[in-house]
Amino acid sequence: MIEITSDKNPIIKEIKALSRKKNRWREKLFIIEGIKVIEEAIKASMGIKYIFFSEILLEADGGEVFFNKIKDRKETVKLSTKIFNQITNLDSPQGVLAIVEFKEREITDLYKKELPFIIFLDGLNDPGNLGTIIRTADAFRVDAIVLGEDCVDPYNSKVVRSTMGSIFRVSLYNVKDNEDFFDNMKKRDIDIITTSLSGKPLERKDFSGGFVLVIGNEANGVRKNIIERSTKEIKIPMPGGAESLNAGVAASIIMYEAMMNRN
Amino acid sequence: MIEITSDKNPIIKEIKALSRKKNRWREKLFIIEGIKVIEEAIKASMGIKYIFFSEILLEADGGEVFFNKIKDRKETVKLSTKIFNQITNLDSPQGVLAIVEFKEREITDLYKKELPFIIFLDGLNDPGNLGTIIRTADAFRVDAIVLGEDCVDPYNSKVVRSTMGSIFRVSLYNVKDNEDFFDNMKKRDIDIITTSLSGKPLERKDFSGGFVLVIGNEANGVRKNIIERSTKEIKIPMPGGAESLNAGVAASIIMYEAMMNRN
Repeated sequence: MIEITSDKNPIIKEIKALSRKKNRWREKLFIIEGIKVIEEAIKASMGIKYIFFSEILLEADGGEVFFNKIKDRKETVKLSTKIFNQITNLDSPQGVLAIVEFKEREITDLYKKELPFIIFLDGLNDPGNLGTIIRTADAFRVDAIVLGEDCVDPYNSKVVRSTMGSIFRVSLYNVKDNEDFFDNMKKRDIDIITTSLSGKPLERKDFSGGFVLVIGNEANGVRKNIIERSTKEIKIPMPGGAESLNAGVAASIIMYEAMMNRN
Repeated sequence: MIEITSDKNPIIKEIKALSRKKNRWREKLFIIEGIKVIEEAIKASMGIKYIFFSEILLEADGGEVFFNKIKDRKETVKLSTKIFNQITNLDSPQGVLAIVEFKEREITDLYKKELPFIIFLDGLNDPGNLGTIIRTADAFRVDAIVLGEDCVDPYNSKVVRSTMGSIFRVSLYNVKDNEDFFDNMKKRDIDIITTSLSGKPLERKDFSGGFVLVIGNEANGVRKNIIERSTKEIKIPMPGGAESLNAGVAASIIMYEAMMNRN
């Protein structure tokens, strides 16, 4: 097991650099924290580059048992508490943090899927909302989440944390050209389902074929050039006072109806 | 219009004190921020004790129009930007903040309601989750949200912000004795619906009578002494990898099914 005692160590600099999206995507690496999520990453056979721990791990709930599982792994690195505190993103860290590899998937692979259940996020902004959507998509066996132009990065630490491990199981794709993606889907006769206030109330049977469900930006909804390409406009009935739902909730309710149709 | 230029002013001290739950409940006052939510409060005829603004309001999107609506109200107070920045909870404030009255409702009033649609929160901890649940409850016309023992305060500024104005429309109740509440509900033949992994998959028809839907704490679920009092245990089917959903999402999906049964 290596031990690092200086914050001038190049590995520490490398980790700190991962707080920026540009560096995460260049290295194809992201940070996860806490015992439970690292256990999920191991279970999901993720490539793990480093596991950093400090002495405070031994005081955490379940910390000693976990330490015994990781202490002989070649990627495990001991840090002084002072250095650990420089790289943690949490106010009350459990004293363990790992660096995990991710793959960039080719959107063309997704075009081969028969009757797909795809969520497309149009400029989704809030890390908590994206994390929630990834978690629900995992629970309801969505085939893929496609992040369109101007979405928050799924490997941002706040997003990762709120997925509760689902980030290791859901297939994520990025598209740089929304129109190209939708034109390809239409060519394949896949339904493009958007939500709008003028849509028809959703029904379970709306989700019987292959489809892309589009979830819009929190403040501005779905972009006009995507609405124009939609084959079905739906809305969630809201008989009460609120005019809209949280984006993560709206997406989850529609995914639930789609899952109930398919299962 | 009053103008305050010193942060020693007793009104400013009073406002700062409202960041603590104890003071909010003694004064029955809470803080709201931003143009849209203050407009919602006025529309909902909430009692407004003060509207504070600083010059930065005039630079905000829609700020000048809003300023013209509030400038002649007797409760409007001008603050220097320096003092405004001491009382705002936001990183990028719009320059307007209001102090709103709330009422403490008697739980016994709720016992009179025929066929109620009640959400009971058992030790819900996260402000964002509570805000989301209040917003969904408003959209789906829930009769009441009951906050059981050890819940986060609904008048906490993070909760208030994430309700997007729904906090003015949903009836909130606090109970200090969970068991007493459930015993009263059972006496009235009202269904107590809890969620658990061993529950049966929920169906729309589960929500045909009057019922209390119990949502548990994020980490620990529903307390044993409440599960023991439940008349129906349900779960949301999760065919995928995630073992659980975000508490706000789970509550919202179940509220959706209940709303669909009733509307």
